[in-house]
Amino acid sequence: MSVHDPQLQSDVLAARYDEVRTYTRSLVEGLSEEDCQLQSMIDASPTKWHLAHTTWFFETFILSALEQPPEPFDPAFKVLFNSYYVGVGERHQRAERGLISRPSLSEVLSYRDYVDQRMHTALAGRTMSESLLALVELGLNHEQQHQELILTDQKHHFSCNPLWPAWRRTSADQTTQAGCEQGSQFVRCDGGLVEIGHSADAFCFDNELPRHRVWIDPFDIQTRNVSNGDYLAFMAEGGYNRPELWLSEGWDKVCSLGWQAPLYWRYRDGGWYSFTLHGEQAINHDAPVTHLSYYEAEAYARWAGARLPTEAEWECAATSQLPLSGLFDEVWQWTNSAYLPYPGYQPAAGAVGEYNGKFMINQMVLRGSSLATPAGHARVTYRNFFPADARWQFNGLRLARGL
Amino acid sequence: MSVHDPQLQSDVLAARYDEVRTYTRSLVEGLSEEDCQLQSMIDASPTKWHLAHTTWFFETFILSALEQPPEPFDPAFKVLFNSYYVGVGERHQRAERGLISRPSLSEVLSYRDYVDQRMHTALAGRTMSESLLALVELGLNHEQQHQELILTDQKHHFSCNPLWPAWRRTSADQTTQAGCEQGSQFVRCDGGLVEIGHSADAFCFDNELPRHRVWIDPFDIQTRNVSNGDYLAFMAEGGYNRPELWLSEGWDKVCSLGWQAPLYWRYRDGGWYSFTLHGEQAINHDAPVTHLSYYEAEAYARWAGARLPTEAEWECAATSQLPLSGLFDEVWQWTNSAYLPYPGYQPAAGAVGEYNGKFMINQMVLRGSSLATPAGHARVTYRNFFPADARWQFNGLRLARGL
Amino acid sequence: MSVHDPQLQSDVLAARYDEVRTYTRSLVEGLSEEDCQLQSMIDASPTKWHLAHTTWFFETFILSALEQPPEPFDPAFKVLFNSYYVGVGERHQRAERGLISRPSLSEVLSYRDYVDQRMHTALAGRTMSESLLALVELGLNHEQQHQELILTDQKHHFSCNPLWPAWRRTSADQTTQAGCEQGSQFVRCDGGLVEIGHSADAFCFDNELPRHRVWIDPFDIQTRNVSNGDYLAFMAEGGYNRPELWLSEGWDKVCSLGWQAPLYWRYRDGGWYSFTLHGEQAINHDAPVTHLSYYEAEAYARWAGARLPTEAEWECAATSQLPLSGLFDEVWQWTNSAYLPYPGYQPAAGAVGEYNGKFMINQMVLRGSSLATPAGHARVTYRNFFPADARWQFNGLRLARGL
Amino acid sequence: MSVHDPQLQSDVLAARYDEVRTYTRSLVEGLSEEDCQLQSMIDASPTKWHLAHTTWFFETFILSALEQPPEPFDPAFKVLFNSYYVGVGERHQRAERGLISRPSLSEVLSYRDYVDQRMHTALAGRTMSESLLALVELGLNHEQQHQELILTDQKHHFSCNPLWPAWRRTSADQTTQAGCEQGSQFVRCDGGLVEIGHSADAFCFDNELPRHRVWIDPFDIQTRNVSNGDYLAFMAEGGYNRPELWLSEGWDKVCSLGWQAPLYWRYRDGGWYSFTLHGEQAINHDAPVTHLSYYEAEAYARWAGARLPTEAEWECAATSQLPLSGLFDEVWQWTNSAYLPYPGYQPAAGAVGEYNGKFMINQMVLRGSSLATPAGHARVTYRNFFPADARWQFNGLRLARGL
Repeated sequence: MSVHDPQLQSDVLAARYDEVRTYTRSLVEGLSEEDCQLQSMIDASPTKWHLAHTTWFFETFILSALEQPPEPFDPAFKVLFNSYYVGVGERHQRAERGLISRPSLSEVLSYRDYVDQRMHTALAGRTMSESLLALVELGLNHEQQHQELILTDQKHHFSCNPLWPAWRRTSADQTTQAGCEQGSQFVRCDGGLVEIGHSADAFCFDNELPRHRVWIDPFDIQTRNVSNGDYLAFMAEGGYNRPELWLSEGWDKVCSLGWQAPLYWRYRDGGWYSFTLHGEQAINHDAPVTHLSYYEAEAYARWAGARLPTEAEWECAATSQLPLSGLFDEVWQWTNSAYLPYPGYQPAAGAVGEYNGKFMINQMVLRGSSLATPAGHARVTYRNFFPADARWQFNGLRLARGL
Repeated sequence: MSVHDPQLQSDVLAARYDEVRTYTRSLVEGLSEEDCQLQSMIDASPTKWHLAHTTWFFETFILSALEQPPEPFDPAFKVLFNSYYVGVGERHQRAERGLISRPSLSEVLSYRDYVDQRMHTALAGRTMSESLLALVELGLNHEQQHQELILTDQKHHFSCNPLWPAWRRTSADQTTQAGCEQGSQFVRCDGGLVEIGHSADAFCFDNELPRHRVWIDPFDIQTRNVSNGDYLAFMAEGGYNRPELWLSEGWDKVCSLGWQAPLYWRYRDGGWYSFTLHGEQAINHDAPVTHLSYYEAEAYARWAGARLPTEAEWECAATSQLPLSGLFDEVWQWTNSAYLPYPGYQPAAGAVGEYNGKFMINQMVLRGSSLATPAGHARVTYRNFFPADARWQFNGLRLARGL
Repeated sequence: MSVHDPQLQSDVLAARYDEVRTYTRSLVEGLSEEDCQLQSMIDASPTKWHLAHTTWFFETFILSALEQPPEPFDPAFKVLFNSYYVGVGERHQRAERGLISRPSLSEVLSYRDYVDQRMHTALAGRTMSESLLALVELGLNHEQQHQELILTDQKHHFSCNPLWPAWRRTSADQTTQAGCEQGSQFVRCDGGLVEIGHSADAFCFDNELPRHRVWIDPFDIQTRNVSNGDYLAFMAEGGYNRPELWLSEGWDKVCSLGWQAPLYWRYRDGGWYSFTLHGEQAINHDAPVTHLSYYEAEAYARWAGARLPTEAEWECAATSQLPLSGLFDEVWQWTNSAYLPYPGYQPAAGAVGEYNGKFMINQMVLRGSSLATPAGHARVTYRNFFPADARWQFNGLRLARGL
Repeated sequence: MSVHDPQLQSDVLAARYDEVRTYTRSLVEGLSEEDCQLQSMIDASPTKWHLAHTTWFFETFILSALEQPPEPFDPAFKVLFNSYYVGVGERHQRAERGLISRPSLSEVLSYRDYVDQRMHTALAGRTMSESLLALVELGLNHEQQHQELILTDQKHHFSCNPLWPAWRRTSADQTTQAGCEQGSQFVRCDGGLVEIGHSADAFCFDNELPRHRVWIDPFDIQTRNVSNGDYLAFMAEGGYNRPELWLSEGWDKVCSLGWQAPLYWRYRDGGWYSFTLHGEQAINHDAPVTHLSYYEAEAYARWAGARLPTEAEWECAATSQLPLSGLFDEVWQWTNSAYLPYPGYQPAAGAVGEYNGKFMINQMVLRGSSLATPAGHARVTYRNFFPADARWQFNGLRLARGL
């Protein structure tokens, strides 16, 4: 947070708070109470739960910490909408989030109103400590992460309905990327002894810290993301049927789960289609390929005679003066880096220290952002992370090559 | 069907149709769209699904068979709401019934209206064949079975909400049984070469046929159902911790699932409570014990120095002039008979032949009826059946003894 | 036990003991220490374990009960080779029997020698009580059951070796059945009010008691067992691909496990072959079909327009003067009866009461005996039982029909 | 391989071949045919399989590639003893290695003799190409890896026998480490822009290449490995009961698997004991703690106010002039580095390219070597790797700290 006057900061955050919370609400448009109830797999939560849990965050970490904390909206929510904060106490089973029909969606929206009103009062009072204001900012960024999850999770929920319902009929979640028609190109990045990580002069997550030096050998990086057209060529050359292209674990997934295309794709009437938030659509060859697991991204890279960049390479290239398109707002880009602490990493103090650190095992880092990421949320040092088999996020890739 | 004038029969069925369908609708009172969406386990279906599937039965087996069948309400429903009729075609995965947010509850209610109107017209026309009228009667009995399942399934769904919500605040689903305070008594039933099974002079399910002779040795049978108080004595004497009382499979369940009381019971503040449709309630010692698996019923009987009656014994006793209370409308009573075809059993012709016959393996018969069974549905020859580990139905027991 | 002079009985049993124990030893011929170690699934035990457990039975129930019990061969064996007798104390995990390399096969054979010598001394002393002598007889019948299991289990173990090793090269475990070439015939059995069950005038298992009356309607029964040739006709008519022929659970097995033929069959070079104790052999059309689950037997019967007999029907027909071949020594014949207690059944006193009674749920009765059953073991009242999906036993069927 | 005269190299390798192969054979001393048959979990293979697979490696990659390849010992072995080389063709299921009683141990030893003789002839002929000689060297290093696995796997197999048999009675597999009694100390390592990885001037695995630059900030590293005594203090302070010390996945393992101590430990008679290759032994406080998962090592480090070193830090410290004991021959030391390719990594050509590369996901790197590693096998650039939950290897840790 660059603004160091707490009172001014309080005003700025109050405005941001309204904006972020309002945007969350807008995401639910077109969804029924029943839609918001669905939980199609353990990794995806009901939209109603997202609405409640993000509110729980403010009630638990901000309102409860005020000198004169307001009454809780409902004491049972403390357990019901805790995601994974052991430091806060017990929590409801993740796998059973879809079984909570009560509170209803309308009660959860009332819960949001209740907390919003009290947050508004608290911020308007301009008396919050700097550390509490930092938690407000964390809460807003937390809510933005759940905004993206509302889209990816609800897409997955709907995909399990054999009728493939369209959420919104207006536009596609597949966009054409700039320069795609001109083919794939690589540009040189010199690397060297560079610094990566956040400088902590504004908000960032603790996992982006500390800024530190890394050595990077020179490498080439693709100027755009891999497209559906590129990926169809991999499929046409038997990509899903050639074990030599795959990590051993990846090949096991291909065989046991029958993967033959990205998630949500199906072949019919002589062509490939995919399920989108707007219903079924024909594959756009110029759009970046997405809904890939790490295994698929890595196998594609091997087939293409290239590799995935490391997260340090990606960050270095993204801060260079290189003509790279699609770094943000298209697809998250899998890197060949495991999600592990930076040298000198310290989790935040208190229960929010569980936010990132305790997940640093068996996950791979993704960089950039996707079409589902809210505006202003991502940045060049941002570390997204998912297990290697995660396919329901808007995850794609761009290639790198050594010299 | 005892009425053999098809036109009169058509009128009678039209009245019954209205009554049964209206009663189903009344069961949903007090449930929200979200409540009706829940599926807490593969054995229990969403209430919305029950509403749709019972309607699908009439549309598929009656309306489609008319000379001039009406347009289907929605062609996709043919697959979506087929339960297990392979003869009808494909069907949606049972485990994923809870993921169908669309059609919504209100669309399903419109589906009911649409089918009801066309059924009404068809019945009013008095032109249905006798075999079609028989299918109408089957459909009504089918719907009554789902009426009971709506209650047992919705109870299970709600029980997975840690807040244990009460559906209806009015009364208890635990009733005091007559004669319970006077203790448990046995009466003698002479048996002999008797007939059991339905005489087919009115509606019955195919599994109740044919009526046939069986030899029964004389036996004693308990005049009332086993009560909560009786069962608490079993628990107090270590019933759940003594392997010698249990079938081997039952003991495995006790150990692996941690059973220490009937389903929905919990101990707190020095006493036992259970989750009911009306919220949490203290155990009533005089009420019949329920929510028992076959394993628990059988172990209780062994502990009590008795056994479960066979279904033939139960039916013989129930048609005797014996002073037995609670045969109906309290709890289904586990018998020591496997659910197998009667000698000479023939499944009904056509797809409805899948109704009963194909489930005749690894299930045990229950007799009587429960507080959740709709009035007029059960009878003395009725064969209910569930796997030995099923606990979410209103299942209890009464004891028998050889001489 | 028909011999009531304990001294004479002791001598008779001593001779039988030698015979039975020697025969067990002969079964192991041709097996290496490694062969005897294998456990290919939880339902099948290592041959070494069978050798030890049958010995444990005599040590635990006879030798330990003597007035001056001998030292145990090894105190650890009490737990290690207890199968399921909770009354005896703890027992080693069934699934891990294949992980016991020590004691070695040769130590287990020494254990047998040790116990045999002491049993010999005890029987020669002619001082055992009648109840103890009854346990000796039970132990011998118990060992005979394990003799059959040694063959069926070892066959399964070997079948998991992709080389399909032959145990013995001498002869086939497929035999031609009398009258098979003359086609399938049915004969009438009058039934009526008959008695079934053992009269207890000689040894029998407790589950064959008490002898009791049952009413049986007249029925027809097949004069021989269903042959491989018959079953191939079922397969040729799409038996494994027609859900309407199957119980619902059976069809689930067909689909999830990919059943397309009896266990151990494979198609190659234009014909069907099966794995036998003597290696791979071409299917003999005239031999009784075997290695069928109940589901397959029941589906076959439906396809053939017939049904399985009940166990009472089987016993009634087998004691009639009917020209039935293959009742014994070919294949166990699935019946349409669940394995449940006879009216008035009482398990034996003490830990051996766990022998049969606690398994009376979710199993189906088989009657007759197989080529693997030791001579003199089976009888017309014998009740064998297995879960409906068990295929590794020598299980087949003969058909019945109502009138 | 530093020797570039192929003829001389051939002679050197011939001597090494004898030595390595003989040592493998010596490991089997004291094991019966039954012991060598055991497979206690999918991750651990039977000792007989290790004996055969290492031989298969030479037959497949060397003998088959000779100008005049010898007859295969048994053509079936090509599939039976292939571990995971898809490029070679089909392979037997890993989970079923324990079901191969035939070939017997003695046939597998004959297989070893057969291949040894032909390898001896081929090497004595001094005509192998350099690339083939490189494969011989790879085969020897491969066999050394399996020598360690024979010890760790057989230990696991035996541990599943409730009698906890001792393999060898002579000495302990727990050793006292130098300097342990003087307590734990840290020394400073300056880091900087250093090189890690192998220089390729002698044999190494492809995953140690290429040598490359990395930047390392200064850090402190523990002079010895963490001891049992240290670890007991962690346990005494509730280490296994404090979720805040654990990665989220690690805590799930603690809870679901009931971890309360390192693998093979048990508490009895007032003290901790562990199962060793020599039977049960009291815990030696001065010995390095071992049989830890990554999760346990990482939680211990957090509790100790430290962290695990990265693999680059470990290698940098190990090549420094620092007074570090126990780098080798005690326990493999978990690092905080994921097993991923070095920049510029290229897998070896041909099927042996599957040796390392395809496992580079969801595994963590360990450095050093253990008491079970054969002499001369490990080196400072050696990268061992296992999934984070692997406990059956001789894995421990030493701590690091930032400044």
